[in-house]
Amino acid sequence: METSFGSDNHSGVHPKVLQALTDANRGYCLSYEEDSYTAKAVELFRSIFGEDTHTYFAFNGTAANVLCLQALTRPHHAVVCARTAHLNRDECGAPERFTGCKLLTAETPDGKLRPEDVLPLLTGFGFQHHVQPRVVSISQVTELGTVYRPEEIKALADLAHSHNMYLHMDGSRLANAAAFLDVSFADMTRNAGVDALSFGGTKNGMLMGEAVVFFNPALAHDFLYIRKQSMQLFSKSRFIAAQYLAYLKDDLWLENARHANSMAQYLAESLEGLPGVQITQKVESNAVFAIIPKDVYKKLAEKHFFYIWDESTGEVRWMCSYNTQKSHVDAFVNDLKTILL
Amino acid sequence: METSFGSDNHSGVHPKVLQALTDANRGYCLSYEEDSYTAKAVELFRSIFGEDTHTYFAFNGTAANVLCLQALTRPHHAVVCARTAHLNRDECGAPERFTGCKLLTAETPDGKLRPEDVLPLLTGFGFQHHVQPRVVSISQVTELGTVYRPEEIKALADLAHSHNMYLHMDGSRLANAAAFLDVSFADMTRNAGVDALSFGGTKNGMLMGEAVVFFNPALAHDFLYIRKQSMQLFSKSRFIAAQYLAYLKDDLWLENARHANSMAQYLAESLEGLPGVQITQKVESNAVFAIIPKDVYKKLAEKHFFYIWDESTGEVRWMCSYNTQKSHVDAFVNDLKTILL
Amino acid sequence: METSFGSDNHSGVHPKVLQALTDANRGYCLSYEEDSYTAKAVELFRSIFGEDTHTYFAFNGTAANVLCLQALTRPHHAVVCARTAHLNRDECGAPERFTGCKLLTAETPDGKLRPEDVLPLLTGFGFQHHVQPRVVSISQVTELGTVYRPEEIKALADLAHSHNMYLHMDGSRLANAAAFLDVSFADMTRNAGVDALSFGGTKNGMLMGEAVVFFNPALAHDFLYIRKQSMQLFSKSRFIAAQYLAYLKDDLWLENARHANSMAQYLAESLEGLPGVQITQKVESNAVFAIIPKDVYKKLAEKHFFYIWDESTGEVRWMCSYNTQKSHVDAFVNDLKTILL
Amino acid sequence: METSFGSDNHSGVHPKVLQALTDANRGYCLSYEEDSYTAKAVELFRSIFGEDTHTYFAFNGTAANVLCLQALTRPHHAVVCARTAHLNRDECGAPERFTGCKLLTAETPDGKLRPEDVLPLLTGFGFQHHVQPRVVSISQVTELGTVYRPEEIKALADLAHSHNMYLHMDGSRLANAAAFLDVSFADMTRNAGVDALSFGGTKNGMLMGEAVVFFNPALAHDFLYIRKQSMQLFSKSRFIAAQYLAYLKDDLWLENARHANSMAQYLAESLEGLPGVQITQKVESNAVFAIIPKDVYKKLAEKHFFYIWDESTGEVRWMCSYNTQKSHVDAFVNDLKTILL
Repeated sequence: METSFGSDNHSGVHPKVLQALTDANRGYCLSYEEDSYTAKAVELFRSIFGEDTHTYFAFNGTAANVLCLQALTRPHHAVVCARTAHLNRDECGAPERFTGCKLLTAETPDGKLRPEDVLPLLTGFGFQHHVQPRVVSISQVTELGTVYRPEEIKALADLAHSHNMYLHMDGSRLANAAAFLDVSFADMTRNAGVDALSFGGTKNGMLMGEAVVFFNPALAHDFLYIRKQSMQLFSKSRFIAAQYLAYLKDDLWLENARHANSMAQYLAESLEGLPGVQITQKVESNAVFAIIPKDVYKKLAEKHFFYIWDESTGEVRWMCSYNTQKSHVDAFVNDLKTILL
Repeated sequence: METSFGSDNHSGVHPKVLQALTDANRGYCLSYEEDSYTAKAVELFRSIFGEDTHTYFAFNGTAANVLCLQALTRPHHAVVCARTAHLNRDECGAPERFTGCKLLTAETPDGKLRPEDVLPLLTGFGFQHHVQPRVVSISQVTELGTVYRPEEIKALADLAHSHNMYLHMDGSRLANAAAFLDVSFADMTRNAGVDALSFGGTKNGMLMGEAVVFFNPALAHDFLYIRKQSMQLFSKSRFIAAQYLAYLKDDLWLENARHANSMAQYLAESLEGLPGVQITQKVESNAVFAIIPKDVYKKLAEKHFFYIWDESTGEVRWMCSYNTQKSHVDAFVNDLKTILL
Repeated sequence: METSFGSDNHSGVHPKVLQALTDANRGYCLSYEEDSYTAKAVELFRSIFGEDTHTYFAFNGTAANVLCLQALTRPHHAVVCARTAHLNRDECGAPERFTGCKLLTAETPDGKLRPEDVLPLLTGFGFQHHVQPRVVSISQVTELGTVYRPEEIKALADLAHSHNMYLHMDGSRLANAAAFLDVSFADMTRNAGVDALSFGGTKNGMLMGEAVVFFNPALAHDFLYIRKQSMQLFSKSRFIAAQYLAYLKDDLWLENARHANSMAQYLAESLEGLPGVQITQKVESNAVFAIIPKDVYKKLAEKHFFYIWDESTGEVRWMCSYNTQKSHVDAFVNDLKTILL
Repeated sequence: METSFGSDNHSGVHPKVLQALTDANRGYCLSYEEDSYTAKAVELFRSIFGEDTHTYFAFNGTAANVLCLQALTRPHHAVVCARTAHLNRDECGAPERFTGCKLLTAETPDGKLRPEDVLPLLTGFGFQHHVQPRVVSISQVTELGTVYRPEEIKALADLAHSHNMYLHMDGSRLANAAAFLDVSFADMTRNAGVDALSFGGTKNGMLMGEAVVFFNPALAHDFLYIRKQSMQLFSKSRFIAAQYLAYLKDDLWLENARHANSMAQYLAESLEGLPGVQITQKVESNAVFAIIPKDVYKKLAEKHFFYIWDESTGEVRWMCSYNTQKSHVDAFVNDLKTILL
C-alpha cells in the first residue's frame, strides 16, 4: 500500500531503528537478555524512570500487558479497565486465560477511566464468593485517542492504592501521549503513581518489541520465570534492546510521535466543515475518530483500508503514524470529498 | 564476543536475511499476517510441504511448540517426549501451564525416542483417573545433536497413529537435520507421518520467528485464536515472513546448515585423540557433546562461554553456527589444548 | 438458627433423602460411579430426558456449571450470560479460570436474557483478535427468582444454534421452575433446545451433589476426564446417586419445590400494603426481592440473617425452602411490621 | 458386593458418622463454613495441631492436594513427588492443570521419598529456563502401603526448608499411619516439619470430605478464594464438619484405622507360605501388595474386584478397611487357595 490510515502498525520501521539492527549485527552475543545491548537498554530505562526500575523485554503489546498482570495478580483477583480497553476487546481473551482473573469493565465515552467509573466496581473485598479487585489498568493513549493528564492518573493511582490495588498502564502509544502533554515519561507514569507499565515502540517506528517496566521492585520478583513460561523470552535479545537504544536516543521517539500527532491534527482540521463527517473524540494523539454515512464508508473503504470502530453508529478510526505524509492526508481527504460532495 | 560455541543463538543475522528486512521496509502493509509477504511465505510452505499445508508464524520456538500442542490436545491429554526434550527441560513449564497436559518422559541416551521407549508410556487409555496420551513429540535435530532417519520417524508416527495419537516435531534445527540426511523437508516430516511441525530458522541465521506447520488441516481449525490468545500474533508480520522468504530462497537455509554442520565435524575431528576429551554423542548436526575434566572445564569457561550439559558427568555442549569460522574452531581447540597439555 | 430466609441452603436435608443415604449404606460398592446406584440414577435421567441423555454427578453447582462449560468450549471462546448470573457474580471467577473463556454479560432487569439482550454480544465471529461467542448460559430459576417460559428458552436456543453456539442452563433451582410452570423437566430443557444442563437438588432438600446432563452426546465425549481432572469425581459415588433416586422418586422434588414456592407467595402476600416495602421482582419461585428502608434493614438483620442484594438501592433477597413453615413467615413478617410500624 | 479388597472406598460410612449427619440435620444453619459445626471442627483441628493451625474443608482428596499446592506455588514452580504418588498418577493431571507446575518425579521402590531421591531434582534454581522447585509432596501412608517415620519426614522437611521449599503431606490415609506408628497426628506432621496437610477421612469411615490444614498461617492467606474458585466450597458445610467431629471423637478414627491395619496384617499372615504368592511391600497399613501368577489373577478377579498395580510384573493391591471382617479375609484367602492349589 502506498499509504494507510488503518493502523500505525501498517508503517514499517524507522530507518534509524533499522540501522541500529544492522549495527547490532556484529559478532557474537550472549542470548536471552544476557547481552550487553540489553544491559545498556535496561540502564537507559533506569535513567529515564529512576534507579530501582526493573525493565524486561517481550515480543508484543498483548504479551506485555498480560505478563504485567500475571506479575500483579493471582487468579482470584480482578482487573478493572475500560470496556474499550485493548486488554478487554482486542486480545482474544488472553488476560483471562493467562491470569485467570476476571476483567471488570466500565463504560466510558472517551476511553478514559475516572475514579467515579472505577469506584462502583471495587466491591466484594473479603467476600469469598467474589473475585477480588487487584489492578486498575488504563491505556495511555486510550483506544479512543484521548490522553490522561498526570493529575488524572494520580487520582486513579490514589484510588487504587487506597484499596490495596495496583495501577497498570498500557503504554503502547506512550510516546504519543508524552508528545501531546509535553511531559516526561516519568511524570506520566511513576511520578503519577503507576506501578507497572507496558512501554511500546512498535506503533511509533520500531520493528517489534515491548518493554515491561516495574516501578515497584517487589512486583518483578518472579518475572524472569513468568516471561519465559509465557513464551516471551527472545533468544537474540540484542535485537530488541538495540531498537530501544535507537528509539530513545536523541529523542527519536518524540520526533516520531510529534509528527504522527501533528498529522492527525492536520487530518482533523482538513475534515472540518465537511458535511456528514462528525469528529467524535478529541484529537489528542495520532488518531481521528469520526462518524460518516454508511454509503460513504463503503466507497471510501474501497480505496483505503481503515477500521470501522462501531458498526451501530458508523464510527470509524483513522490512524496516522510517524511516516504519514501531508500529501497522504491530502489525497485521503480529497477522496473522501469526492465521495461526499 | 568474537566467537562463541555456547549457542547457535549467539550468532547474529545472516546478511541476506537482514537485507530482506530492509527490502520489506517499503511503504505500508497490512498487519497481523494479512500482508502480501505472509501470503507469499504461506504459499512457499505449501510448495515445500504440499497443498493443504497450513502455516502460521510465531515469535519463538517455545511458543511454536506450545501452540502446536495447544492445537493438538485438551488439558486431560498427555504428551510423550524424551526427558531431555527442550519441551520438558528448557521451557520453564510452559507446556504444562498452557496446555494443562502432563508430559510423560522417556529416558534415552542419545535424545532420540524409539517405539520401545514410547510404548510403555501408552497406558491408561479410557481410565478416567489417568491422563490420556495424545501426542508424541520429537526434536529433529535432538537436543543431543543426533538426527532421526525418516524411517525412524515413520515408525514413531505409525505407533502414534495406531493409538489415535499425533506426532509433533520440534524442528528448531530442522535445516541441520535436512542437511545431514540430504533429504527434503517434506520427506523428514509430512511424508514420514508428522502431523504438526515447529519449523525454526533463528538458530540458522534468521533474526527471530518460527513457523507452525500443520499437515492435517483439521488441526489448524482454531489456530488463529490460539495464537492470538497466546500472545504470539505479530503486528508487523511482514518482517517475519520476509525473513522466511529469504531463508528459503536459493537454499540459503541449506548453505547455512551445511556450514554449521561441517564446523561441528571439524571441531570433533580436531578433538580426536586429545587426552581427557571424550566425545559422547554422534556428531550429526552442529553440536559436539563431550566430557572433559572439571578443572579443564573451569579454565576453558573463563575464556569461552558454553553450557555444561550434565553437572554430574562433566558433559559439555559446544555449538557451531552458520557463521562459525574454521579459525574460530582452531583458536578454541588451541585454547583447550593449552589447558589440557 | 430456628429459621432462615437467607438462603435455601440454610435448610438441612429432607428426611427421605437422609433415609436414602442410610439405606445405601449397606455392604460394599464400587466407587467412582461404577456402582449400581449410579447406574440406576443415570438410567432415571434417561427416562426423564430421553434415551441418549448423558448424566454425570459432581459435588456442587459451581462445579456443574464450570464443568459443563469446559465440555462446550475452548479457551478462546466466550460465554454470554446475564450480569447477575451466578456464573458471573458468585463463583469467584471459576468460569474464567477453568475454561479460559471471557464472559460477555448483558444487563437485564429481571435476571432473564432475551434474544435482544444476547444479539448485540454476538459479534467478532472469525476476527482473530476477538473471543468467539460459543455458549449462551441462562439460569432457570434466575438469580432474581424469575422463571423462563419454555418458548422463551426456545427462542434463545434458536438464536444460539443459528450462530453455531450452544445453550447451557444452570438449573440449580430447576425444580422450583418446573413447579411454577407445571411443565416437565424435559419440556423446559431438551425439548426447548437446551444442550447442556446443570441439574441441582441441594437447594431443594438434598445434602449435596449436582447432575451434569448432556442432551448432545458429542458434548459428553471427554467428560469423564474433564470431571476427574477438575477434582469433581466422588469416590463413594453411591451417596450422591442414592440422593437423586430419592429426590426424583414419587415427585419428592415437586412436593418440596411447590411448598417452597408457595411459602414465597405467602410471604409476598403478607408484605402487601406494608408501607416502605416494595417488592421488586415477580414472585415466580421461592424468592422474594424487595426494597426496604436502610434503617429497617439494619434492625431486621439483627434478628434474621438474609442477604442485601443491591447496596445502592437497599434491595434485599428473602428465600424460602422446602421446610419453611407458615409460622416462620408469620414470625418474620411480624418482626418486620414491628420495626416498620 | 458382600465384601471388597479393591479399595477402602468400597466400604460405606461408619454408623457413628452417619448418625452425626442425622444429628446435624436439625434446624437451619448458615452455609459456606459460617455454621457452628464448622467453627467447632476448625477449633478441634487447632486443639490437635496447635493454635495457629488454619483448617478448611474440601470435597475430596484430589482437591485437597491440588488446593494445597495452589496455595504453595506459582505456575513456574515445580513439585517433587514419588512417581507412584497419587498426585502424579491418579489425578488425571489435575495438579499440572490447576497449579501450572511441573511435577518432578523420583523412582522409589516402596513409595517413600528419601532425601537422596529428592536432592538430584533440586536443580536449576535461579535459571530462567527451568521450573523452580518449590514443594516436596509425600503421601502418608504411601500409595504402596508403607509409612514414613517421623524422623524420615523431618529429614525431608529439613531438606525442603533448606532450599526455600515447603513440605506437603497427602494424608488421605493419615489415620492408618498414626495407628501403625502409634504417634500423634501432630508428631507426624507439624512437629516433623510439614507445612501443609491434606487430612482425609473418607477411606476410613467418612462419607466424604477432606481437610486442608496449614501450619504456616501465611500460606492460608488467599485460601478462601482459591477454594471457592476451585469449585470446592460446600454450601451445606455443616455436613462435612459434623462428620469430622464424629470421626475425631472418642478416637473413632483410631479404632477404625487399627482395625483396617490389623485386617491387612491378618491377610498377609494368611498368605504366608502360599506357593506363587510373593508379598512385595512391607505391610504397615491397610494394604497388601503381592505378585501372583497372571492366570491366578484372572481367576481370582472373576470372584473379587481388586486392582492390578503393575501389569508388567503381575503385582496386585488388596485393601482392607474399617469394616473388613476376618471372615471376609478367610473367604478371600480360601478362594485364592482353591485357585492356587
